[in-house]
Amino acid sequence: MGDSINFATVTTTLATVATVALYFVHKRETSKLRDALALQRYRRAHSKPSFEIETLFFPDKRIICWNFLFSKCRDESCGYCHDCEAPLARLVKTLQNAKRSIDLALFEITSEELTQALLDKLKEGVRVRLIIDSEYMMTTGSKLGKISSAGCEFIHDHTHGLFHHKFAIVDSQLVISGSMNWTRQAAIGNYENVLLVKDKNTALDFEKEYAKMWEEITDRLKSANEKLPDQAAEF
Amino acid sequence: MGDSINFATVTTTLATVATVALYFVHKRETSKLRDALALQRYRRAHSKPSFEIETLFFPDKRIICWNFLFSKCRDESCGYCHDCEAPLARLVKTLQNAKRSIDLALFEITSEELTQALLDKLKEGVRVRLIIDSEYMMTTGSKLGKISSAGCEFIHDHTHGLFHHKFAIVDSQLVISGSMNWTRQAAIGNYENVLLVKDKNTALDFEKEYAKMWEEITDRLKSANEKLPDQAAEF
Repeated sequence: MGDSINFATVTTTLATVATVALYFVHKRETSKLRDALALQRYRRAHSKPSFEIETLFFPDKRIICWNFLFSKCRDESCGYCHDCEAPLARLVKTLQNAKRSIDLALFEITSEELTQALLDKLKEGVRVRLIIDSEYMMTTGSKLGKISSAGCEFIHDHTHGLFHHKFAIVDSQLVISGSMNWTRQAAIGNYENVLLVKDKNTALDFEKEYAKMWEEITDRLKSANEKLPDQAAEF
Repeated sequence: MGDSINFATVTTTLATVATVALYFVHKRETSKLRDALALQRYRRAHSKPSFEIETLFFPDKRIICWNFLFSKCRDESCGYCHDCEAPLARLVKTLQNAKRSIDLALFEITSEELTQALLDKLKEGVRVRLIIDSEYMMTTGSKLGKISSAGCEFIHDHTHGLFHHKFAIVDSQLVISGSMNWTRQAAIGNYENVLLVKDKNTALDFEKEYAKMWEEITDRLKSANEKLPDQAAEF
């Protein structure tokens, strides 16, 4: 009888201990798995997308306030647009956000606003490079002289074909490209589109092409014994 | 004693049953959670990216074989390019893949290859629409007459500003845009870039802009009592 009771007590105790232990193991494990699931869900919900595309359409029917873009406009009766979502303002802002480099491949540049954004960046020490079309770099109103004398490195394509690009790579991360030349006419007079693409693979594609063009065109200019214009006075 | 044994037996049995039950509950629950985690991991690994961007750069130094693009070239001595990764061939192929619609917004169209791709699609019953620049629709070599007489609906912008777009929306899903006009000169003579963007939000942005332009320009043409040219003979 004593043995039976001892046996029963030991068994009961063991079974109870096992039950309690198993309960805690179960609780810990399911809790760990639930945490892992919740973490995965949180990460998915809060992870930044690996790319962003923003599309700008022109003509911009509003004329942007210069002071608002480049300093601050405190004139309450100012009749110009103060809306930074306006397409030209978004373009200027994208350049203003550059931290290290802006690589430009442009058919022409006459836009006062885009030029001012580049001049400000050059002043801050951002590296700005430009490849531009040989003929159109000297078009009426060209800002090439201004930006090159402010420190922008540049070469011109020196071909009969057009250097028809209108793109920029900002900080090796973001590509600006579309139909729009960097002129005032394009921004306020034409139907145009510009894509702002923040995608590392696209940026890499454009960087590779930029490096290739820079080398190819520099070689062409050298073999043609072409003096590289580097004086602002030449424009 | 009998009571003690019965009590011990009942307790042991209950504890054992509880332990076994708890074990199975634990096994089922952790297994369910592990399956959910595995499914999440699988989905992440195998999910198609929600976007694709492909970048094409010109000039294309090779001249694409016409027969290879539009039927099949069996000429072993054919000196033209048979590589479908060539940028112009990729553009033609993108149009050839259209199933339902192609919405075009073009400054001009003179390219034989891109025109042929559109003519083939019109023949298949794909809806092709075009908005084009008023002045450049009549440029030398314009293919507007050919595609409009094959069934392409079109309007021209009727403004002094340029209708400078060079984009297409294929099947409301894919956007083709960049610096390149749809001309032969652009494809083989110029430095150009074209982005092929497969992203539903970008496609939606372009579709909205297309619908807005179509309405705005149609209204302008009507209010100017402008006869919409719809006869191939006019070009």
